[in-house]
Amino acid sequence: MPDNDSSDFVVVGGDAAGLSAASKAKRENSELDVTVFEKGRWVSYAHCGTPYFVKGEVEKLTDLLSLPPDEIKERGIDLRREHEVVGVSPDDKTVTVRKPDGDEFEHGYDDLLVAAGARAANPFEGAELDGVLTLHGLDSAACIRALLHEPDDFTVESLGGGDYLNEEAARRYGGMEPPKKVAVVGGGYVGVEMVEAFSAWDIDVHVFQRSDHILPAFGEEVAESVEDCLKQNGAELHTGVEVERLRGDSDRDGGRVSEVVCSDGTTVEVDAALVGVGIRPNVEIVADSVELGDSGAVAVDKYGRTSAENVYAAGDCAEMEHVVTGEDDWVPLGLTANRAGRAIGATVAGTPTETGGIAGTAVLKAFELGCGRSGLSAEEAREAGYDPVSVTVDAASRSGYYPGAEKTTVTLVADSDTGRLLGGSTAGKDRAAKRIDTVATALEAEMTVDEVVRLDLGYAPPFSPVWDPVLVAAKVLEGKLG
Amino acid sequence: MPDNDSSDFVVVGGDAAGLSAASKAKRENSELDVTVFEKGRWVSYAHCGTPYFVKGEVEKLTDLLSLPPDEIKERGIDLRREHEVVGVSPDDKTVTVRKPDGDEFEHGYDDLLVAAGARAANPFEGAELDGVLTLHGLDSAACIRALLHEPDDFTVESLGGGDYLNEEAARRYGGMEPPKKVAVVGGGYVGVEMVEAFSAWDIDVHVFQRSDHILPAFGEEVAESVEDCLKQNGAELHTGVEVERLRGDSDRDGGRVSEVVCSDGTTVEVDAALVGVGIRPNVEIVADSVELGDSGAVAVDKYGRTSAENVYAAGDCAEMEHVVTGEDDWVPLGLTANRAGRAIGATVAGTPTETGGIAGTAVLKAFELGCGRSGLSAEEAREAGYDPVSVTVDAASRSGYYPGAEKTTVTLVADSDTGRLLGGSTAGKDRAAKRIDTVATALEAEMTVDEVVRLDLGYAPPFSPVWDPVLVAAKVLEGKLG
Repeated sequence: MPDNDSSDFVVVGGDAAGLSAASKAKRENSELDVTVFEKGRWVSYAHCGTPYFVKGEVEKLTDLLSLPPDEIKERGIDLRREHEVVGVSPDDKTVTVRKPDGDEFEHGYDDLLVAAGARAANPFEGAELDGVLTLHGLDSAACIRALLHEPDDFTVESLGGGDYLNEEAARRYGGMEPPKKVAVVGGGYVGVEMVEAFSAWDIDVHVFQRSDHILPAFGEEVAESVEDCLKQNGAELHTGVEVERLRGDSDRDGGRVSEVVCSDGTTVEVDAALVGVGIRPNVEIVADSVELGDSGAVAVDKYGRTSAENVYAAGDCAEMEHVVTGEDDWVPLGLTANRAGRAIGATVAGTPTETGGIAGTAVLKAFELGCGRSGLSAEEAREAGYDPVSVTVDAASRSGYYPGAEKTTVTLVADSDTGRLLGGSTAGKDRAAKRIDTVATALEAEMTVDEVVRLDLGYAPPFSPVWDPVLVAAKVLEGKLG
Repeated sequence: MPDNDSSDFVVVGGDAAGLSAASKAKRENSELDVTVFEKGRWVSYAHCGTPYFVKGEVEKLTDLLSLPPDEIKERGIDLRREHEVVGVSPDDKTVTVRKPDGDEFEHGYDDLLVAAGARAANPFEGAELDGVLTLHGLDSAACIRALLHEPDDFTVESLGGGDYLNEEAARRYGGMEPPKKVAVVGGGYVGVEMVEAFSAWDIDVHVFQRSDHILPAFGEEVAESVEDCLKQNGAELHTGVEVERLRGDSDRDGGRVSEVVCSDGTTVEVDAALVGVGIRPNVEIVADSVELGDSGAVAVDKYGRTSAENVYAAGDCAEMEHVVTGEDDWVPLGLTANRAGRAIGATVAGTPTETGGIAGTAVLKAFELGCGRSGLSAEEAREAGYDPVSVTVDAASRSGYYPGAEKTTVTLVADSDTGRLLGGSTAGKDRAAKRIDTVATALEAEMTVDEVVRLDLGYAPPFSPVWDPVLVAAKVLEGKLG
């Protein structure tokens, strides 16, 4: 049932990458006919803000919208929400779209961007139990926050979700008894942020992490700092422990989650579980028509082009080139999606623009602690074939004599053969997180450690000691490199 | 009266550059015989902390010492305080040293580092009046803080200066009536920091700046932010006004300062004046024996070598190569001194090490505001022969929906011919100052603006919006460059 319709530029997915591309293309060339198909009701929202909505620091769900649909339409973009693209045919240059009523139609394109995002993984037996949650998207955030209210206190309006909200789901969770004890399964970004969110509601939190340390991407030093911090804030940590299943409270394991069962036989009673063990790229619609990378996400070139002509991919469903290894990698993060979308929009509009690489830079708040990471950890460097040398230093965040100076832990990793900086991490209570930007910039510039030592960073007692903690680490690493 | 003595490495000046060099040389080669001559009693102290000592946030003067003399001696360095080097003879490879008793002797060297620092300028008629102060060195900080106490409340011990303090001077100032109204002449770093310090003592502050804006090195945008901030905190600003003289309260203009007289005829009554109109390099002892640069400071090569064999110079008395222009420049700052000293120490000990260039990076606190600058301002770029394009943006310091987000003003300057980033500045209440480190690192890497746009900086709602304010500015500048 073709609608005989077609656009110059069709975008699959109305979030960071998709709408950045649509907006940029339209801005650069207002003649372009741009259509965005989004399967859900929400568009252009800040994923990374959802833990703070659950925590209560962000009042309304709609506060997390970057661009309301009206504004998108004002930009001249044909935005079709609740329109799911279920197939892509690069040979015909069409996509197949399913409407809210279930009917499907074909829509042609000159250029296509697949920005279909990702979904939360929940591989555990018991995933379907009541009180087992993932945090991905605003409706899931709404359900979690609804669950935290006493049923008598809850109103669906309190979520501030406007017309976008899946009210039925939110009401269902709002009607449940709030949890007293929550399992956070997976100690990655989302897990750590959600410990803080649950703790704000006076809930006991148990964190389960399969490896010996949480936050493996941040390296052991940051992980240990965050572990100490979570414990000091009352969380109980179970590391080196594999969760086997989630068990329910009714006869045949149905009903509400009541227990986390670990592979070593230990069990922990809980009345809710947040599963944060990573996300999977949404590649199904193009899995047969474009090449996927080793990660399972869509493989693209420097311009975000897939193996199929006129088909681009960006955001959480696509790989990107890593600036350190030069290899394709899948590190789904917000800035990457925005930047790649923006570049593809410019390219489609006629100005070929590279999407830029990724350094895998990430920053994270855990209660009063700020952490950052960029590039490769020592372990990742070893896996990538380098012979890494690394150092960890504790330096002051400000001049030692100035009020408010806090310990800042910096790890730097370098290649012992060339002296090139490969990665780093930071942790501390006083502006430690964004100190990683110096590392990220140095990585992008392919600096050696002795070049980092010579960086002319800002010094004033309230903000940094003479030698910024990153420089202190670089000096020590320079000495170790010899 | 030669003492028939000689050292492998002689250092003139016992502060940042001098002691960094001595320590590094000794650490790299413990066999080296290292002697440091320092004309004063204080060594290895944090200049930049003095405004906070005057303010009262730093309790004791000795808190500002990085390395006490005892520790320096434990490192095997022959530190001779109150020994002033009054002459250098590169032909004989000797220095002439004046002892505390006034006697002089010759001391030989294999390698010599001149790290004689700088002194505060005070070119005004009336400079000698009571209550006219400069802030350079710990004794001057002691005198200013002494002056701020009621004579009855003051004890010299309260300054926490130990044996190092010039007690006589401190007592003299401690005996004076504290000022009610202070003139800060010069709106540079020191001036701005001292406004904050004086305000903490409930003193009315008048700032006098010859040019139309304070902080010329930070560019107009930062200057305006700081000006607003100073005014909101009660300071009165007199910009575009030249101070002609300081007038005293006794008959023949002696006694205590009572009035600032400007060249346009206006006068402002004050009872103290802090003159912060810059510093001058201490080059007299080598002015006849080594080449000076255009700035009047000592000219050096990439290794800190002067035109005289085996004579190095570093710190506030030496020029350095600017990483943007590639020209020699004089930007006397703490990190520069420490790094150059450290490199020269390594070179003298047998490992030739470049001192690194300067980007002129500086950060500054003005009450609740943090500011940074690096590289060239638009005006400096024009003077250096570039055809600069610049943009200024106001962006949020965190995601807009996250509590504590503050306006962050970022200015970036680029070369319109090549698109190369030339400089930038930042200002804001939420961690704006150290965001300049990204700019400093990008400048050192000679990045173009489109490379800056592609930087993978850290994003999480509590620390940064998706696009860090520096990236927002880079995107706008990229658009302007076309």
